[in-house]
Amino acid sequence: MRRVSDVGEFGLIGRIARLAGRAPGRDVVLGIGDDAAVLRVRPGEEVVVTTDAAFEGVHFRFGQETPRTAGRRAAVASLSDLAAMGARPLGLLLALAVPARLPLATALGFVRGVLLEARRAGAPLVGGNVTRGSEVSASLTALGAVPRGRALRRDRGRAGDRLFVTGALGRSAFERARGRVAHVGAPRLAAGRRLARLAGVGACIDVSDGLVADLGHLCRASRVAARIDPARVPRPAGLPEGRAAERFVLAGGEDHELLFSVRPRGPGAAELARRLGLPVAEIGRLEAGPPRVRGVPPGAGGWRHF
Amino acid sequence: MRRVSDVGEFGLIGRIARLAGRAPGRDVVLGIGDDAAVLRVRPGEEVVVTTDAAFEGVHFRFGQETPRTAGRRAAVASLSDLAAMGARPLGLLLALAVPARLPLATALGFVRGVLLEARRAGAPLVGGNVTRGSEVSASLTALGAVPRGRALRRDRGRAGDRLFVTGALGRSAFERARGRVAHVGAPRLAAGRRLARLAGVGACIDVSDGLVADLGHLCRASRVAARIDPARVPRPAGLPEGRAAERFVLAGGEDHELLFSVRPRGPGAAELARRLGLPVAEIGRLEAGPPRVRGVPPGAGGWRHF
Repeated sequence: MRRVSDVGEFGLIGRIARLAGRAPGRDVVLGIGDDAAVLRVRPGEEVVVTTDAAFEGVHFRFGQETPRTAGRRAAVASLSDLAAMGARPLGLLLALAVPARLPLATALGFVRGVLLEARRAGAPLVGGNVTRGSEVSASLTALGAVPRGRALRRDRGRAGDRLFVTGALGRSAFERARGRVAHVGAPRLAAGRRLARLAGVGACIDVSDGLVADLGHLCRASRVAARIDPARVPRPAGLPEGRAAERFVLAGGEDHELLFSVRPRGPGAAELARRLGLPVAEIGRLEAGPPRVRGVPPGAGGWRHF
Repeated sequence: MRRVSDVGEFGLIGRIARLAGRAPGRDVVLGIGDDAAVLRVRPGEEVVVTTDAAFEGVHFRFGQETPRTAGRRAAVASLSDLAAMGARPLGLLLALAVPARLPLATALGFVRGVLLEARRAGAPLVGGNVTRGSEVSASLTALGAVPRGRALRRDRGRAGDRLFVTGALGRSAFERARGRVAHVGAPRLAAGRRLARLAGVGACIDVSDGLVADLGHLCRASRVAARIDPARVPRPAGLPEGRAAERFVLAGGEDHELLFSVRPRGPGAAELARRLGLPVAEIGRLEAGPPRVRGVPPGAGGWRHF
């Protein structure tokens, strides 16, 4: 079995570059192979950038899922942040750390997973870095563009806004709890871009830490409280009704749906669903008060790293 | 002693955000605290982006240098990639992974080091991420902007170009070999931007892996050979003359000087020094042939990760 150490740092980079191919985007001036990538934005656009780390043993487990699935999961988490800003993707950068003894196939499997989701999103891999680490980790940077002043933000919520969520919540966490390979969500990129163009939209965030946790982030940024009705949060097929599965719905992250607020006179769920091309449900509202989420059982706070 | 686990993920993020302060740049539309940062570029500019990981035990050692110095080193390495592209810095993102038991002061010391170099470079910390890892690591993403079509590149060298280097090489590696805290180089940002505006400039790279290794990267990208005269490479004060210290000059990285080529009719060392505001020395030339570096002793290849 070939190890990463058999091909070396530049051998691995060369293989990644070949898998990535020539970055096809019209927006890529210079891709993999220089000190940095160079990307083009259109006149009147602003640049959106986010970086996230994923560690084996924390964010993914090679014992429980294939390296390819782990790579997909890391890429989706990163691209989902672009979706939550309403940005169109320009490119991805991957800083990969691997032990020297790691099977080469494992490293390349992870990269293939990243590339699969990158291609789906129209975000070519334009750069990155390979280094030695005692465990496998990947830091993904996603770059996007958004029309000036139109970025969706967490801090734009107001008391009185209604709260909506796309799709359904809890599938990944439920599958994980069942010992199955958790569903890899899809970044809601098209819906995010449409949302950024709609009048009457308030704040927006993607559900990555869990509904209650992410709504908490939105409340703190917007300096408002929120009240949701857990019974109104859409559940995916296969998730039991009732309280038993409620924690997956409220605290399970990784579904990467969009959670957003709309002004009282803005569109309702039916119109939003039509505009966004996705199921949309109204699940509560923003209220005056200190930032907290009302209407949910205690302990529905979601994932914390420490 | 307080540990990272005492303040938690969001406590640590809050402390980092306070240390960073409000991102002061005119280019920052939205800094720390949302799903992504939003940055402004000027009309006619392209976006430059690079990401790099630094691991405790590989890129820095807390036993040998303070967390602050380690943070400075990581930031400088990232900003130096912008310098090598001729870009002006827009902002930095930091994805930090730390063990839960790490002293809080160590984590914040590292962040302070990053912020020190970020401020010097005029690159506000605009985002990032904190996660749990079994060792301390930091992934730094640097974002910059460059006038359209003016980015300095590794692949623009031609046979016949003369080779130049800014400053002096070998100080960091020499100090490290002596068991001292290695000098933290400075990213040559102003020089890079000036170089990007000069007529007659060919390829450019920053010296981070070592002169011979980085010149090798430049040769492969430009599909040319290079010949250098080691005796002409400037040595820093304190480095002995002669062969004994040659390996520090040829293979020592981290000095973050700029290595670039200039067409035969382009400016010479004296004019380049005046234009760039730095010492500049002519050290060799690019030649036709398969990509390799001639004129150096075998084994001067520099740092490899595997």
